[in-house]
Amino acid sequence: MYKYGYLFDFTKRVFMKMGCSDHDSAIIAEVFLAAELRDHASHGMIRLKDYYELWKAKRINTGAHVTIVHESPSTAVVDGDNAVGMIAARTSMGIAIEKAKKAGTGWVATRNSNHFGIAGYYAMMALEFDMIGICLTNANPLVAPTFSISRMMGTNPIAVAIPAMNQPPFVADFATTPIARGKLAVAEKKGEKVPFGFVQDKDGLPSDDPTILKRGGSMLTLGGDRLHGSHKGYCLSSIVDIFSAVFSGANFGPFVPPSVAYLPVLEKKVGAGTGHFFGAMRIDAFQPAEEFKLKMDEWIKTFRSATPVKGQEKVLIPGDPEREAEIRNMSDGIKIVPAIKDDLVSIAIQLGIDFE
Amino acid sequence: MYKYGYLFDFTKRVFMKMGCSDHDSAIIAEVFLAAELRDHASHGMIRLKDYYELWKAKRINTGAHVTIVHESPSTAVVDGDNAVGMIAARTSMGIAIEKAKKAGTGWVATRNSNHFGIAGYYAMMALEFDMIGICLTNANPLVAPTFSISRMMGTNPIAVAIPAMNQPPFVADFATTPIARGKLAVAEKKGEKVPFGFVQDKDGLPSDDPTILKRGGSMLTLGGDRLHGSHKGYCLSSIVDIFSAVFSGANFGPFVPPSVAYLPVLEKKVGAGTGHFFGAMRIDAFQPAEEFKLKMDEWIKTFRSATPVKGQEKVLIPGDPEREAEIRNMSDGIKIVPAIKDDLVSIAIQLGIDFE
Repeated sequence: MYKYGYLFDFTKRVFMKMGCSDHDSAIIAEVFLAAELRDHASHGMIRLKDYYELWKAKRINTGAHVTIVHESPSTAVVDGDNAVGMIAARTSMGIAIEKAKKAGTGWVATRNSNHFGIAGYYAMMALEFDMIGICLTNANPLVAPTFSISRMMGTNPIAVAIPAMNQPPFVADFATTPIARGKLAVAEKKGEKVPFGFVQDKDGLPSDDPTILKRGGSMLTLGGDRLHGSHKGYCLSSIVDIFSAVFSGANFGPFVPPSVAYLPVLEKKVGAGTGHFFGAMRIDAFQPAEEFKLKMDEWIKTFRSATPVKGQEKVLIPGDPEREAEIRNMSDGIKIVPAIKDDLVSIAIQLGIDFE
Repeated sequence: MYKYGYLFDFTKRVFMKMGCSDHDSAIIAEVFLAAELRDHASHGMIRLKDYYELWKAKRINTGAHVTIVHESPSTAVVDGDNAVGMIAARTSMGIAIEKAKKAGTGWVATRNSNHFGIAGYYAMMALEFDMIGICLTNANPLVAPTFSISRMMGTNPIAVAIPAMNQPPFVADFATTPIARGKLAVAEKKGEKVPFGFVQDKDGLPSDDPTILKRGGSMLTLGGDRLHGSHKGYCLSSIVDIFSAVFSGANFGPFVPPSVAYLPVLEKKVGAGTGHFFGAMRIDAFQPAEEFKLKMDEWIKTFRSATPVKGQEKVLIPGDPEREAEIRNMSDGIKIVPAIKDDLVSIAIQLGIDFE
């Protein structure tokens, strides 16, 4: 088990060695560790190697200047200058929050960015300002639209954070697929099958093989099949892609660049880098903040008191599991499995810093 | 088969007889017929009786004055004065569009409204202004959150309309459940079972019985079960509910009033009427409109050219089936099944107008 502070300092040092400023490196480390604390380990330390390899391959800009290229009272388009995704994203969400202070809401589309960790981190930035936060991003294509065998979309997540008064905030953060990509990797490492409804083979036939993506297979959208509403998952994933990429001028759909260095740069570009979309909505642009937050308390208590199915302890509010994990992982420490530790040690040696 | 114009005129006359102005009655008729044209018959003429019975029971206000009760440069809260939902909704979306003209985006939360027909109608209002349109609404509770047997949410739909240049617009309009409520009624009338994954019984056990809602059952969220992502459908449905009701001051979750007169008014209120949420985003607040729309053409052509699964003709773009239906139904006419025709004749007789 590793302490939060140890992994934070190590991650920060890695990015400083890669040329990021002290300030930027601290932000990046915070987002990496937020994923670990919230039990989204698929977006945590396991990804550090990908970022390091992209930097070694000169495919990511650690000295980027993130700039606004277009704006209106409630909107902006941001160019990430090929920054580490966390830097482009945090700056963009900050702009959305500033816009919202004046116009009631702020909406920022960001192009020329990269993988940014967990979407929930940026949505939650709005909470301390008594705002609702929204964050969307597209991602490299692994997912087939309904009726198709072509990988056209990423797992394109949606995050929405809504403040309450005495209750903890409502925080939804989910891929628009039945499962996140990382769960396939976990099943593969364990040598297990996955349930039907997650992936299909190269011909579009149902599959329970977590390694099927390596042989022309693809992930399915939320809903699984047409009968159970996969076209609705396809709609959601498309909306995330269009908001993130067409609003911003980033690459869309099958042209989103890979977030790992072992996959080649795509030949065809239809925009700049990966795209994100951020929203901040001042709650007092709709209702007095105190009234809204008390009403959210009532909403949360109402849903928490729904009758559970027999055998289930309770009905959860979005954000409950992650908040419980945060408390536990901050106190008990963060588990790093041996294979990932080996990666971190290897990065440390190459950069001349310590990790043990 | 009925001609569009005949059903439009009849519907308009019905609402005029109920006290709506000429102008309002035409809007309501247009939304009813939009549902029929787009093959969403579950929101079309079949519903006229519900509106009529609510009016007879004095539970809906046909002389309503819809007003803005709070606003910021990019937001407004609208009180629907218990209007027919179409009137509150069309006025609200119009306000969102006006806000967007000045602030780049416009966001309106509406309370004290009623059932408003198809959400896609209002989202599509934005298209002619080169804006993206968004429409959400909550609805009377039939759906259980993940791990629960309590009916806490409606089928809470999401509609998003995005303009293109030479391609038709992208129009997504879908319930956050695997199927719409109306599909259960259709299966019931045919005496058929439904696939597992749509509903559960009163104990939360899987069910294929379309009549199970009458015996304590509930609908499931998009995803179906926890393993296949029902918690994501629960998140979506919750977000729609909170945006529609907590932002506006309407009733949320289990307190949303029924949209039919044969169900009693609920004893507990936590706000006013049903709630909706509308968004309009000027595309040139992000990108020059022409560039954006040409890029959307490219997005649409890219997805349309995805390889279909063997046995499928093509990959669809959201909005394709409804647009094809519109053309077909406008030319061939609209089918009204005998049971619904009987309802319409009965309403006509009671109001002293013709229907045959």
